Amino acid sequence: MANPPNPFAPGALPATPLLDRVRVPADLRNFSAEQLRQLADELRAETVHAVSQTGGHLGASLGVVELTVAIHAVFDTPRDRLIWDVGHQTYPHKILTGRRDRIRTLRQGGGLSGFTRRSESEYDPFGAAHSSTSISAGLGMAVARDLKHAAARRAPSRRDEQNVIAVIGDGAMSAGMAYEAMNNAGAMRSRLIVVLNDNDMSIAPPVGAMSAYLSRLISSRPFLSLREMMAKLARRFPAPLERAARRADEYARGLLTGGTLFEELGFYYVGPVDGHNLDHLLPLLRNLRDAEDGAPILLHVVTQKGKGYAPAEASADKYHAVSKFNVITGTQAKAPPGPPTYTKVFAQSLIAEAEADDRIVGITAAMPSGTGIDAFQKRFPRRTFDVGIAEQHAVTFAAGMATEGMKPFVAIYSTFLQRAYDQVVHDVALQKLPVRFAMDRAGLVGADGATHAGAYDIAYLGCIPEMVLMASADEVELAHMVATCAAYDEGPTALRFPRGEGFGLEPVPARGTVLEIGRGRVLREGGKVAILSYGARLQECLKAAEELGARGLPCTVADARFAKPLDTALVERLAREHEVLITIEEGSVCGFGALVMQHLAWKGAFDHGLKFRPMVLPDAFIDHDTPKAQYEAAGLSARSVVETALAALGAESAARPARA
Amino acid sequence: MANPPNPFAPGALPATPLLDRVRVPADLRNFSAEQLRQLADELRAETVHAVSQTGGHLGASLGVVELTVAIHAVFDTPRDRLIWDVGHQTYPHKILTGRRDRIRTLRQGGGLSGFTRRSESEYDPFGAAHSSTSISAGLGMAVARDLKHAAARRAPSRRDEQNVIAVIGDGAMSAGMAYEAMNNAGAMRSRLIVVLNDNDMSIAPPVGAMSAYLSRLISSRPFLSLREMMAKLARRFPAPLERAARRADEYARGLLTGGTLFEELGFYYVGPVDGHNLDHLLPLLRNLRDAEDGAPILLHVVTQKGKGYAPAEASADKYHAVSKFNVITGTQAKAPPGPPTYTKVFAQSLIAEAEADDRIVGITAAMPSGTGIDAFQKRFPRRTFDVGIAEQHAVTFAAGMATEGMKPFVAIYSTFLQRAYDQVVHDVALQKLPVRFAMDRAGLVGADGATHAGAYDIAYLGCIPEMVLMASADEVELAHMVATCAAYDEGPTALRFPRGEGFGLEPVPARGTVLEIGRGRVLREGGKVAILSYGARLQECLKAAEELGARGLPCTVADARFAKPLDTALVERLAREHEVLITIEEGSVCGFGALVMQHLAWKGAFDHGLKFRPMVLPDAFIDHDTPKAQYEAAGLSARSVVETALAALGAESAARPARA
Repeated sequence: MANPPNPFAPGALPATPLLDRVRVPADLRNFSAEQLRQLADELRAETVHAVSQTGGHLGASLGVVELTVAIHAVFDTPRDRLIWDVGHQTYPHKILTGRRDRIRTLRQGGGLSGFTRRSESEYDPFGAAHSSTSISAGLGMAVARDLKHAAARRAPSRRDEQNVIAVIGDGAMSAGMAYEAMNNAGAMRSRLIVVLNDNDMSIAPPVGAMSAYLSRLISSRPFLSLREMMAKLARRFPAPLERAARRADEYARGLLTGGTLFEELGFYYVGPVDGHNLDHLLPLLRNLRDAEDGAPILLHVVTQKGKGYAPAEASADKYHAVSKFNVITGTQAKAPPGPPTYTKVFAQSLIAEAEADDRIVGITAAMPSGTGIDAFQKRFPRRTFDVGIAEQHAVTFAAGMATEGMKPFVAIYSTFLQRAYDQVVHDVALQKLPVRFAMDRAGLVGADGATHAGAYDIAYLGCIPEMVLMASADEVELAHMVATCAAYDEGPTALRFPRGEGFGLEPVPARGTVLEIGRGRVLREGGKVAILSYGARLQECLKAAEELGARGLPCTVADARFAKPLDTALVERLAREHEVLITIEEGSVCGFGALVMQHLAWKGAFDHGLKFRPMVLPDAFIDHDTPKAQYEAAGLSARSVVETALAALGAESAARPARA
Repeated sequence: MANPPNPFAPGALPATPLLDRVRVPADLRNFSAEQLRQLADELRAETVHAVSQTGGHLGASLGVVELTVAIHAVFDTPRDRLIWDVGHQTYPHKILTGRRDRIRTLRQGGGLSGFTRRSESEYDPFGAAHSSTSISAGLGMAVARDLKHAAARRAPSRRDEQNVIAVIGDGAMSAGMAYEAMNNAGAMRSRLIVVLNDNDMSIAPPVGAMSAYLSRLISSRPFLSLREMMAKLARRFPAPLERAARRADEYARGLLTGGTLFEELGFYYVGPVDGHNLDHLLPLLRNLRDAEDGAPILLHVVTQKGKGYAPAEASADKYHAVSKFNVITGTQAKAPPGPPTYTKVFAQSLIAEAEADDRIVGITAAMPSGTGIDAFQKRFPRRTFDVGIAEQHAVTFAAGMATEGMKPFVAIYSTFLQRAYDQVVHDVALQKLPVRFAMDRAGLVGADGATHAGAYDIAYLGCIPEMVLMASADEVELAHMVATCAAYDEGPTALRFPRGEGFGLEPVPARGTVLEIGRGRVLREGGKVAILSYGARLQECLKAAEELGARGLPCTVADARFAKPLDTALVERLAREHEVLITIEEGSVCGFGALVMQHLAWKGAFDHGLKFRPMVLPDAFIDHDTPKAQYEAAGLSARSVVETALAALGAESAARPARA
């Protein structure tokens, strides 16, 4: 037999004779084990080729190719519910489930989402993108199934019963939510299969005692052989008559030997098994599928992130998230050299502050590189704390440090701070503790889409007393605001800044200047229209002011800098001296504009007429696209500001964008 | 020796000769063990007597009397940091730490908080009221201590090193946050003592696999004897030279025998021990205090909720939260018969809906009685799910059920939904899943104070797309809205209603009528002032309208019913036809008023003048008091509405309450 063509030949599509026969998973269920192995190879090649054209989360997808094939071969998806935690490892799953024809549109505007998504396919019964939700969702589905059977007063045979499978990574296991779900599932008699996909790697190497525990489990026990697996299963799922006696016996033995942590939480633990060996996975999954026992099952599968693609395997982050790349060499396309990112400026500014003040510490919840804390860690390893995917703990841990006089910066994405909302209210703000929240990825975030949009923080923090809220108009402002947060010690501060590159403003100071709390700045004066910006739309506002000025409508442009405390003198002056007042922010309704209106209403500024237009993100979830396209569609561009001003001034027929 | 006087004699203060000598913990540190035992008895009597006069969380406090005495006797508080999880078990702690003179002001306006509070005492290094935060806070303090030592370049001797002790209940262990903190602590070498106060009881009996695991631990191992404890400690904390060898040995043994779940998470586990036996607690705590090993320690203490007070011991809920009572009989003061509470109406309405639709299920996070889910459970045990203190899981579990066509109602306090904010955004709203949130305790809540205020939900949900938001003006409206949530299947709904009794409106329908989504109602028409109420301030609005009418200022009063979608036609008409428009809500800034303003601004309603006054809670945390007094102080009473209208109409000198 001739060698198959090199599936990674540049330019050329990989040869995929078997994959070409699979439109939906039903098409592969009659494949032989040997065919499934080949299918997995083809699927891997197709995944690599597709992501080489789109960029995306490659490493995680490569690690689960065999697992994806095995689950779809054994289980009756979509009737059986397959839930992928986080969902960024589902490119092979998407290829097998009717979406191969669009796989090269991944993460592009109008294309496939980079995560699972209910609206995209019936094979995605639960959408995700944030981590650690899958066991909860799966348990809900399993319990719903049981209730429906109970209502129909029939106990289906195992063969007729829907299976629910949740695949969750070891990194996601550091989140409390996964524990809460296991704690519940373990106490219920509802059939649920949790596949723990252990690649000893989340985005960064995982941290914490659970991770160490999993490593010990693996290192202390070799992979189960097929014979051992089957013997173990036979012991667990014997003929009905033997069951009661065995259970009592196992219970006693469990007490004696301890069992695994998962067994102590009520799960039946199987593992560790090699997640790339289809000869083991297939019979094992079939047995678990057909087992009659009702306990939840945890199958511990060990995989390798980036598996089967040499450049990924050799890379430190296993190609967690890549740009477009050359399939042969693995060389990733470099973005043309641009201004430093906000993340980088944040990290540099924080390091500069920390050089001068050894009370400053940096905290991240499993996102050291995304937040710039990796750079901080290089300089201050002992003052850096990566707590794992554990946002709730991160915030209250910071609060505890603040009580002792430390100056903690919690570096976190806006969307992930949602996971610690009560901790911000109850542990930080209520106690007026000077915890600093540095919220990266505020506003729209591009290819990660609606699940990652940092749209809500102005609203969800704006309503909390004692918070000082800032937004950076640009990278220079960011440096000043980091300095301001570091200096302010009377209560909590939160600073938001967008994803991506700054405007290339220079020089970004090596260390920022402390700003006056609650004081904005005026960039340009004009008598007709006032534009008050909060955050990084400022440049768009200046553009709009140029255009309005050119039309004979002089504009004032101000940067509020602070949403709380509000610069009330500035706001009142803008209202008093202009016919139109526009606020604009990279956030949802109920945010900065609401705080301004609340103040103006009580000052009577609307009593005798003010053309006030609060420009915010539309009240809708905004799909993935480039940030620029997203903001255009959202009506938060310079053009929209101009149209808004003109419409307010009487060109009533002009479009009115950006209402919530 | 004569018998001591009956400490529970009615009316009389208990005799407390030893307690009288203790102003702060330092005063008891030279007491003998026998004196400490007597002190504990006196402290228990004083606690019972005080709570008999104030009401409050008695059962939990009685369970930790000995533990409180022992910790303060052994540790150097406040220099050593003692953190009580939840903080409602700290009445004995307050009595011993300089607050005895105010203990009979507990939970009263101007009096002591019912929880720990930093602003109240240096002996409260971390305030609480929500559960499961203590390990995170304690770890933060411990790490801060270590960093300060490192910065000072000196390793203090154990005797000089501050200790950090976190006391957490077994119920609080069901929360993911506690797991996140243990997962981190277990991987660090920072000295931290976690006391697991296991009374097999949170507010309701605890649920979940962890609870079952703790029960197995206790039932499989008798209490350690003093000799066993000391032997175990000696093995753990031997002379330095022997340590390394022993550690390797223990590690190997741990792998072999499994160890406890806590050991697998990196803690040194000691227990179970009898938490009412000072002869055991005192030497054990001294040993743990002086141990030189750096690992975090988990001390498993078994206590009895309500211990030592017969009526509490005999009660099913162990006097978790009581009203004033007769010390001799234990009989609690009954509130004068009043209208049914909102909680009760909610439960009845939900049961009525569930009778007609077997897809309806009820979910609570460890608050079955507080939310009325206990009544639902009696009727529908299989359709009721108490997930423990696990709000994140509760919401996503509900989302999973909704994907399968069930109709889940998550019955939860407004303040606790904060703990599942991301799940509401990411798992429910983004997927437009019809999960129903029934938010009890919306608005100000009285004696529980600022930590429990349901002030923020309108803001934190108002900014999320796809949410349908309702607030009940009264108990009849509540019945209708439960029916409306049950009927609406196109996306998520959230319904808020206040703590306490309704207005006694009759009849509350046995089953509510489905309301039109996004449609308000007008209760009274008048041409000058419009008052648009969202929620249970409606009666105050009607009173205000009476008074304004009597002054010749005819008022329209409307009930918005929905904050999202807003009844835009109603809002626009009110703005068009009145000189003054007031909105009022039992919530913070950035809520309903903001949604109304956002709409009106874009409709140009302010362009030519509208006296708009959005009445919201002040932008401050509001201390415990009666709800009525809280709302008066907050400026959300009928009187404030009248003053607001008058001031807007030109009596400029009138007070302007309720600005944020």
